[in-house]
Amino acid sequence: MTTSRLVADLEPPYYTAVFTSLRPDNPEGYAETSEHMQEIVKQIPGFLGYESARTPGGIGITVAYFRDEESLTAWRQNAEHQSAQRRGREQWYDAYSLHIGKVERSYSFERE
Amino acid sequence: MTTSRLVADLEPPYYTAVFTSLRPDNPEGYAETSEHMQEIVKQIPGFLGYESARTPGGIGITVAYFRDEESLTAWRQNAEHQSAQRRGREQWYDAYSLHIGKVERSYSFERE
Repeated sequence: MTTSRLVADLEPPYYTAVFTSLRPDNPEGYAETSEHMQEIVKQIPGFLGYESARTPGGIGITVAYFRDEESLTAWRQNAEHQSAQRRGREQWYDAYSLHIGKVERSYSFERE
Repeated sequence: MTTSRLVADLEPPYYTAVFTSLRPDNPEGYAETSEHMQEIVKQIPGFLGYESARTPGGIGITVAYFRDEESLTAWRQNAEHQSAQRRGREQWYDAYSLHIGKVERSYSFERE
């Protein structure tokens, strides 16, 4: 699911998990699984929020924010998440990349 | 401008500059400046590529990839880029955030 609000004003250090992907518009089973993943990631201690954008017919970018390595590991090892990843590779995605970055510097702007 | 291909198989370490934003759909002067920024960032030594997605009526996410701190600094200090940033705050963006992350781990998948 795409999101409509920014994750702002996080205090470094924290981690960004940048997931970029190419897939058909509405593959079977994708929306339900995506929604379920959003529910369970919120239960991971140290999960700080996420944003997702997708250009129709183009690429999708999701950025998830985590407090530390432990929270990233907990999410990576979550059994339901691993099952969804397998299904993603088998059925949904033509290609994807994941970049895990440690953030030491960030900046937010909001019009007054 | 949004992009339609993934930046994949970069060798860590490298940096991600994650820029998330909210703005009207087609503000005056935005498209020309955006296109010009894409041209000049390519001239920065250590610039590795970028991806951009935008949900219609929602958020935009752009991820730019840089080899090292020096290339990030060169882009941040570029005079035309600074001028575009000022105009962005004054005219185009309702809100944005920038997260600079150092990537030590990444993964790419492509369907065969």
